[in-house]
Amino acid sequence: FIQPPMSCAPLSNFLTYVPNTTTKEPAPTTLGILGSGDFSKSLAFRLLRCGFCVVVGSRHPKLAAQSFPHVVDVTHYEDAVQKVNIVFLAIRREHYSVLWDLKHLMAGKILVDVSNNRRGNQYAESNAEYLASLLPDSVVVKGFNVISAWAMQQNYPQDASTQVFVCSDSLEARQQIMELAHQLNFQPVDMGTLSSSRYIENIPRRLFHDWKGPVLAAVAFSIFFFSYSFARDIIHPYFKYKQSDFYKIPIEIVNRTLPTVAITLLALVYLPGQLAAIHQLYYGTKYKLFPKWLEGWLQSRKQLGLISFFLAAVHGLYSLCLPFRRSERYLLLNTAYQQVHAHVENSWNEEEVWRVEMYISFGIMSFGLLSILAITSVPSINTTLNWREFSFIQSTLGYIALLIATFHGLLFGWKQAFEKNAYHFYLPPSFMVALVLPVCVIMGKVFMLMPCVACKLKKIHMGMDRSLHGCRRLEPVGSAANVSPERVTIM
Amino acid sequence: FIQPPMSCAPLSNFLTYVPNTTTKEPAPTTLGILGSGDFSKSLAFRLLRCGFCVVVGSRHPKLAAQSFPHVVDVTHYEDAVQKVNIVFLAIRREHYSVLWDLKHLMAGKILVDVSNNRRGNQYAESNAEYLASLLPDSVVVKGFNVISAWAMQQNYPQDASTQVFVCSDSLEARQQIMELAHQLNFQPVDMGTLSSSRYIENIPRRLFHDWKGPVLAAVAFSIFFFSYSFARDIIHPYFKYKQSDFYKIPIEIVNRTLPTVAITLLALVYLPGQLAAIHQLYYGTKYKLFPKWLEGWLQSRKQLGLISFFLAAVHGLYSLCLPFRRSERYLLLNTAYQQVHAHVENSWNEEEVWRVEMYISFGIMSFGLLSILAITSVPSINTTLNWREFSFIQSTLGYIALLIATFHGLLFGWKQAFEKNAYHFYLPPSFMVALVLPVCVIMGKVFMLMPCVACKLKKIHMGMDRSLHGCRRLEPVGSAANVSPERVTIM
Amino acid sequence: FIQPPMSCAPLSNFLTYVPNTTTKEPAPTTLGILGSGDFSKSLAFRLLRCGFCVVVGSRHPKLAAQSFPHVVDVTHYEDAVQKVNIVFLAIRREHYSVLWDLKHLMAGKILVDVSNNRRGNQYAESNAEYLASLLPDSVVVKGFNVISAWAMQQNYPQDASTQVFVCSDSLEARQQIMELAHQLNFQPVDMGTLSSSRYIENIPRRLFHDWKGPVLAAVAFSIFFFSYSFARDIIHPYFKYKQSDFYKIPIEIVNRTLPTVAITLLALVYLPGQLAAIHQLYYGTKYKLFPKWLEGWLQSRKQLGLISFFLAAVHGLYSLCLPFRRSERYLLLNTAYQQVHAHVENSWNEEEVWRVEMYISFGIMSFGLLSILAITSVPSINTTLNWREFSFIQSTLGYIALLIATFHGLLFGWKQAFEKNAYHFYLPPSFMVALVLPVCVIMGKVFMLMPCVACKLKKIHMGMDRSLHGCRRLEPVGSAANVSPERVTIM
Repeated sequence: FIQPPMSCAPLSNFLTYVPNTTTKEPAPTTLGILGSGDFSKSLAFRLLRCGFCVVVGSRHPKLAAQSFPHVVDVTHYEDAVQKVNIVFLAIRREHYSVLWDLKHLMAGKILVDVSNNRRGNQYAESNAEYLASLLPDSVVVKGFNVISAWAMQQNYPQDASTQVFVCSDSLEARQQIMELAHQLNFQPVDMGTLSSSRYIENIPRRLFHDWKGPVLAAVAFSIFFFSYSFARDIIHPYFKYKQSDFYKIPIEIVNRTLPTVAITLLALVYLPGQLAAIHQLYYGTKYKLFPKWLEGWLQSRKQLGLISFFLAAVHGLYSLCLPFRRSERYLLLNTAYQQVHAHVENSWNEEEVWRVEMYISFGIMSFGLLSILAITSVPSINTTLNWREFSFIQSTLGYIALLIATFHGLLFGWKQAFEKNAYHFYLPPSFMVALVLPVCVIMGKVFMLMPCVACKLKKIHMGMDRSLHGCRRLEPVGSAANVSPERVTIM
Repeated sequence: FIQPPMSCAPLSNFLTYVPNTTTKEPAPTTLGILGSGDFSKSLAFRLLRCGFCVVVGSRHPKLAAQSFPHVVDVTHYEDAVQKVNIVFLAIRREHYSVLWDLKHLMAGKILVDVSNNRRGNQYAESNAEYLASLLPDSVVVKGFNVISAWAMQQNYPQDASTQVFVCSDSLEARQQIMELAHQLNFQPVDMGTLSSSRYIENIPRRLFHDWKGPVLAAVAFSIFFFSYSFARDIIHPYFKYKQSDFYKIPIEIVNRTLPTVAITLLALVYLPGQLAAIHQLYYGTKYKLFPKWLEGWLQSRKQLGLISFFLAAVHGLYSLCLPFRRSERYLLLNTAYQQVHAHVENSWNEEEVWRVEMYISFGIMSFGLLSILAITSVPSINTTLNWREFSFIQSTLGYIALLIATFHGLLFGWKQAFEKNAYHFYLPPSFMVALVLPVCVIMGKVFMLMPCVACKLKKIHMGMDRSLHGCRRLEPVGSAANVSPERVTIM
Repeated sequence: FIQPPMSCAPLSNFLTYVPNTTTKEPAPTTLGILGSGDFSKSLAFRLLRCGFCVVVGSRHPKLAAQSFPHVVDVTHYEDAVQKVNIVFLAIRREHYSVLWDLKHLMAGKILVDVSNNRRGNQYAESNAEYLASLLPDSVVVKGFNVISAWAMQQNYPQDASTQVFVCSDSLEARQQIMELAHQLNFQPVDMGTLSSSRYIENIPRRLFHDWKGPVLAAVAFSIFFFSYSFARDIIHPYFKYKQSDFYKIPIEIVNRTLPTVAITLLALVYLPGQLAAIHQLYYGTKYKLFPKWLEGWLQSRKQLGLISFFLAAVHGLYSLCLPFRRSERYLLLNTAYQQVHAHVENSWNEEEVWRVEMYISFGIMSFGLLSILAITSVPSINTTLNWREFSFIQSTLGYIALLIATFHGLLFGWKQAFEKNAYHFYLPPSFMVALVLPVCVIMGKVFMLMPCVACKLKKIHMGMDRSLHGCRRLEPVGSAANVSPERVTIM
């Protein structure tokens, strides 16, 4: 078992900020915990290790005392609350009713609500706000709920984040609890007033919340394009020529699916911005809210772009691996054999050479640009960019990357679209299917850049409503502040 | 239109930090905005959505009221200022004169200056400092200027940074405005006193300010080396042998340009440190300022290094793509044909084999080291390193990477430098031109590491001036604090 | 020499937070520095440049004055202390005794201890805590020790981190010094009470402290596997068939070493979690501390994983470079020659084709997953993940990556393990040796997932001790808070 400090040693005096203190040995701070479950135990160990005294309030103190070190004072709720000024509530929301009897004892004290719910948005209001309404005379602070019991027990938990999100309507209480988080070797994050508690309580429930839609879209497109290529490139030759090309599945078919999904997702990054611009042109104002689905789509552009980049990177890897496959080697040797037997001294085909050099070159350029977009999505790099820089990279560079990627696809396909043999089962080559959306988006962008449209959009983005159109500009004094970045961002 | 709250609901009480509050329903805080332009509108929407009441001051209240929701009280400047304690100034600097009449009304109130200028450093002093000098009785806070009107309107703007830089000479006012930023779902960043306002006002103007020089250098070198290779490898065979190698432009010539520029930029990362050391050796002290150009060069080393890494990565990609080009395939098949016809059973060339194995291997090693340097440049990783670690990676590892990259180039060229045929148009091979600078830098480093020079430099870095040389060391008591990291960093 | 301000211009008034100030020109703040060494000089320059007045206390004021600009008031210790409220102590711990005489003068003043020690953990208590015990009437603040004298002299040191870690038992003093750090263009980081000073003082001493063990392990495994492959693939054919394959050393042998070390390290990431689970199953509780070595191993999992990823990436690069080596080309041409001469029209081998397609495909998949793990280790991305997300990526995805990498290895080896010829010098192929550990770890994981074991572990992770087993669960009220993440993390 953990060795608790001999006695409650006076290591910390964080509640007594007296600069010119003359007392050499301040008494140790005693903190209370209501509830004696797993989190309570872990928190008690942590507090002891950091030099605090701990009083635990329990419904069955004698039983509960068995699972705490003997230096912890396990007692009844009332008793525990009376002894301390800061109380951790390691109690489920369903049992908050027991606090009713302690109401008068808790008045003026700081209650730290560490609770989580089983499901997100289970209740109308957050636990902490509910608690604050139950005990209006106490100061409720939300915090420590994102730290698991396991992380609590670690000395220096380096694996996962040690951030502790703290919010409270009382600035003073919030600062005290943030100070406490510091002393427990966590990194407090100031989240402002108690209205942030819903957000904080939902943090531990989240499981890639923002990623669900984009990942589902990527999976759906992958299944579609994989099946499409499978039908065209494996089933068709098998039925038509009894040719067994099943060895192509693990690499060639996958590598045909990846770029098509990647470019489709990249087009989907820029489509919602254009829809938003059309919405604004239609209503003639930027103050009309977008429909919910469009709002959600706009929010998930970053995720779509990152998945697109990831798939493009894997596509690059697969492509680079093509030459050292055994199949490639056999085919090359067989071709050499045939060339020798056919007495073809030079098999050079200038058109083919140029096509391949060009599409490889466009592919690399497009990937290089996409990688810049991806790198600037890293949060700590993102925060170093201002709006102009962010817009330049995400919008201008992104569109250029999409354009080059489209050329990459067109050059790859070359004249296939016009050859009858390329239409297996009457299905066009997959690159054609994949390029429909990107080409539309690029044409949409060209439309947006046409002077008449661009001018109207600019006016809307500068805050002019159609209703006020034509009339003189209202008070231009403060209007131009921060105007420039908007135009680029929407599109 | 956005649905404003039914009435000004009392959601927030951030200005009343009374821990033991007994009032259940605090009155909603009312905030003022002067100016009725686009930013003003966006800010008003945001404030309403977050539960504040808003009073807008306008020169033409009736006209302006049309573009605000009806719950917003649009009134005259004087009236608006009188009703609130915190006023946002969404007014251009050119119109600050209108504030003169409001001077007495604004005394003691917090003025949040959200203004930006059209150009950076347009005026001698920042807008906020100018405002503070105009209204000495008010508390001026700079903030929210980096947030665009568009970002203001978003509920949870996740695309770009939501950081709000706040500065003020009054700590109390600054904390209040940071608290307010929290409540508006922004991330406040404490920037200290009002002297930071110039920096904050320049943030939205910046467009890759630190990157301009390095990018221009990279572009200039790229153009030079591209033309050089084009002349040597395309024009020369065309004129001499009427051989049309234009297919080499998109990949081979580009791939010859990339590594030469990359290694030149990498050498330029380490050259200024050596010039700085020479400067210090010449003047015999480290307290003499470097010339402006050297200072600027030293500042842009990180950017030079990152561009060098990016070009090296793209060079790697191009190189990896070489084997699956159609041209490579044709050349290989033709070679096979010739080998068969010449009855050469074994074409093995041990020297060539070793040369290629070695230069590939050095290339990968160098790139691996460079990638570590690049990764540690990510801000959030950089901050986890102390000076010793940072110096080890950026200086020691960086020099090793440069050394290995130079070997990579030398092995690639091998004996070409001594063959007359390699000098097309009397021009040496491009690898020779590219390696001049790296070789100089490496020799410079060797010179710096020579005991006599290293010892002098160490003394200078420890703060000893030549003027005091020979005399006994002055008070060594506090001198050695933080000495060690310096030596490595300069070089 | 640096141009100091003409006179001590009143630029800053950070110590006078009077919101409704009516004084237009506050007097400049004067700060004191005790000690006149290199750090003192650098700090004085910085303070002057930022508009402060500086008083330096020295044992030999006349001598010391020569190395300071004339606007700096260099005087005796007593005199310097009397003139200011904030004193920087640029003095070594060994000379703290001189402060004894100044005790009464320093009472109530803020002392900023900037000292570092030559070695980490040199003394029983940190310098700052020792100072606080010497001068109990002064307010000791630890800070600025991570900034080198060189960084002090820079205007905007962008190369390395500009973070200044500040801690003090007095919140007020800490805030003042953090404010000061802001004004000196540093980024203050609040580290809480003075008990953090040991941690802060050890920061500049650290040199990849967390990386030592993992890097040593990687080096040891690399040497072992390199020698093993060297013996099997170079020495063996040389002795047995007099075949000189030494050209294989730089690429092929290295590329055989890299994946074996990478997969071994990846297995070592997941082994300690299983050992920890066994430890918990054995003792029937999670409150029994792990042995020191296991604790250390658990702490270094992140580093092990990142090194594993790095080696896997380099392995990928080497593999991709294989086809454009000259040796590969010669071998291919010779094979073509032989095929033509043997009149083999089609050399296709379906089994070989499938084997290679499959193992390449598994390799890419495994690397793709590992790269997601690596990206989420970047601190700023890590902090955006909650426990569930972190656990999903690091545990679930990690195990899948290990599983796929193991398949990659098994498919690479294929039937070699059962062929007598593969056992050179009676040594099994290196892939077999490398796969022992991963296979054990995967089997261990399967064991942990068996219902009976998983159920027991779950109970332990929920905080139930074996001692209380069978008896009714104690107060489930607060117990389930934060339970879910634990189970995944340990394993």
